[in-house]
Amino acid sequence: MTHPAKHPGKSFVVAVVGATGAVGREMMRTLDQRRFPISRVVPLASKRSAGKVLEFGASEIVVAELGPQSFAGVDFALFSAGASVSREFAPIAAKAGAIVIDNSSAWRMDPQVPLVVPEVNMGAANIRPKGIIANPNCSTIQMVVALKPLHDVSRIKHIVVSTYQATSGKGHAAVEDLLAQARAVLDGKLPAPSVFPGQMAFNVMSDWKAGEMDYSEEEHKMVNETRKIMGDDSIGVSPTTVRVPVLNGHAESIFVEFHEPMTAERAKGLLRAAEGVVLVDQAYAPGKHPQPVHASGTDPVYVGRVRDDLAVKGAINMFVVADNLRKGAALNAVQIAERLI
Amino acid sequence: MTHPAKHPGKSFVVAVVGATGAVGREMMRTLDQRRFPISRVVPLASKRSAGKVLEFGASEIVVAELGPQSFAGVDFALFSAGASVSREFAPIAAKAGAIVIDNSSAWRMDPQVPLVVPEVNMGAANIRPKGIIANPNCSTIQMVVALKPLHDVSRIKHIVVSTYQATSGKGHAAVEDLLAQARAVLDGKLPAPSVFPGQMAFNVMSDWKAGEMDYSEEEHKMVNETRKIMGDDSIGVSPTTVRVPVLNGHAESIFVEFHEPMTAERAKGLLRAAEGVVLVDQAYAPGKHPQPVHASGTDPVYVGRVRDDLAVKGAINMFVVADNLRKGAALNAVQIAERLI
Repeated sequence: MTHPAKHPGKSFVVAVVGATGAVGREMMRTLDQRRFPISRVVPLASKRSAGKVLEFGASEIVVAELGPQSFAGVDFALFSAGASVSREFAPIAAKAGAIVIDNSSAWRMDPQVPLVVPEVNMGAANIRPKGIIANPNCSTIQMVVALKPLHDVSRIKHIVVSTYQATSGKGHAAVEDLLAQARAVLDGKLPAPSVFPGQMAFNVMSDWKAGEMDYSEEEHKMVNETRKIMGDDSIGVSPTTVRVPVLNGHAESIFVEFHEPMTAERAKGLLRAAEGVVLVDQAYAPGKHPQPVHASGTDPVYVGRVRDDLAVKGAINMFVVADNLRKGAALNAVQIAERLI
Repeated sequence: MTHPAKHPGKSFVVAVVGATGAVGREMMRTLDQRRFPISRVVPLASKRSAGKVLEFGASEIVVAELGPQSFAGVDFALFSAGASVSREFAPIAAKAGAIVIDNSSAWRMDPQVPLVVPEVNMGAANIRPKGIIANPNCSTIQMVVALKPLHDVSRIKHIVVSTYQATSGKGHAAVEDLLAQARAVLDGKLPAPSVFPGQMAFNVMSDWKAGEMDYSEEEHKMVNETRKIMGDDSIGVSPTTVRVPVLNGHAESIFVEFHEPMTAERAKGLLRAAEGVVLVDQAYAPGKHPQPVHASGTDPVYVGRVRDDLAVKGAINMFVVADNLRKGAALNAVQIAERLI
């Protein structure tokens, strides 16, 4: 699948920080697949991973070690190497003149850093006093893409969301852990977890760091980031984040109540026209709705099972699935860069 | 683990209809493990399964073919052979003098049939004009056991529940399908679903029959059965049922709003004292909360992650896990019988 170059003329130097990680690799793939106008790509990583060779289209590029001098001449610096790396190096990259798009949690709630999902609030990206734009958390991105068109019409009052999150959200090693554990169980052995804090194969668990009030950090992200992206601190969010033994692709069961009553029929109309959304628009039937194995490897946010609530008039329920490495991370970051050029 | 006989003196003839199925086998195991006072156990099944030999404690018993004459002298008839078998044979068993405890959906919503969870509404079992008592759906049982103690104090207004349901709820063959599919994926092959309507391994899906208004039948059960068991038709339930690639043990993410405000602290106190509940009472930490692999093979309903809601004052969230074949089916049926003697 090849696209014509979208931006004839100018091309850019793009650094990818954390290029050997799950999201970093997806960023490289996405830049190539979408034919981002690149004059030079600069994969960066820690000393441990420097020297590795990564494919980029037809060429192979050696990963350089991240350092204070890495960003000379760089136009866009896409960060995905964890919060502490971003805290240290994002300001250095910005100072060197790069537009930083950071996939970590380091800058997301900084009032001077816009938190951007292109389909939802691209305008916010234009005001970036620190030269840094933050990419939201994967579970938040797919939710706000699905909810913004409805919020614009009926203003959201309350969201109850329970997630079914894939292991790839925790990185390569977590996926490998799940696969090794699954093989052990199938072979009648005890699984020996290497990344997860217990058995992940054929199990569900919440494995994120603890946040305040007995919520996980991931749950607080879904509350705070949703409000910041939507620009409405009055939105109530009741989140429960759960990891399921899926390789890639997050799913979310979402109940939404509005200030102005919504109907499933109207919501479907809005979602059919919404950017970045594929509405799975059919009556309930077993197995005929968005699923992680179908979404994985694709770009859209799939919304299905849109139905009027049985308890609260004017509320609806929906099931939202997306590739957490793509729209949930790498694709969203690259889309931000695309719209800035 | 042996228990002393609980009921010295009288003992009973117990028929198990659908004895070779996943729940039927669990019923036989449960009767034996709990030392139900049995003089004779009568495993019954369709012609296809008749003649099979089942273990019951130290003895082996041949499965007989279910027929109109099967219930002579039977005191308790535990049914778990699907709704159509129950519709035909439960009245015959009742007419022959047996107390029928039916695990199918056939009689659950019949106004003349009590729908019973012993910890919640055992009193209802005493009025059974048809001689039939219905055992609720697995996903409903564990939810009402966890919610009844709170409902008694603050009266539930609205429940939003998203389920993480194990494949064993669909029977033996579904578990085998998941295992075979998982092995195929691990071997780099395409899974070939035999029971599920698509890939179940490393995926999540809703695979129940369609009900009204784009909800699954399973979802409507959670609404209607909850109201009937709680004896309160004003309770609003917003259900989303999802199958996950777990062998055994259902999990549920539950948001609850009350007429009189509740707090997590108070809810924990009530749940600590509640019959049939094990409260997992610790602050959030990754991997330290109820999980299917821990609940599987045990009797209690595990309630954890009890926390004050972040959006609605006086509402709480919780994560509820139980063995869907035990408390969700076989154990609940046997407990009903135990309390009747």
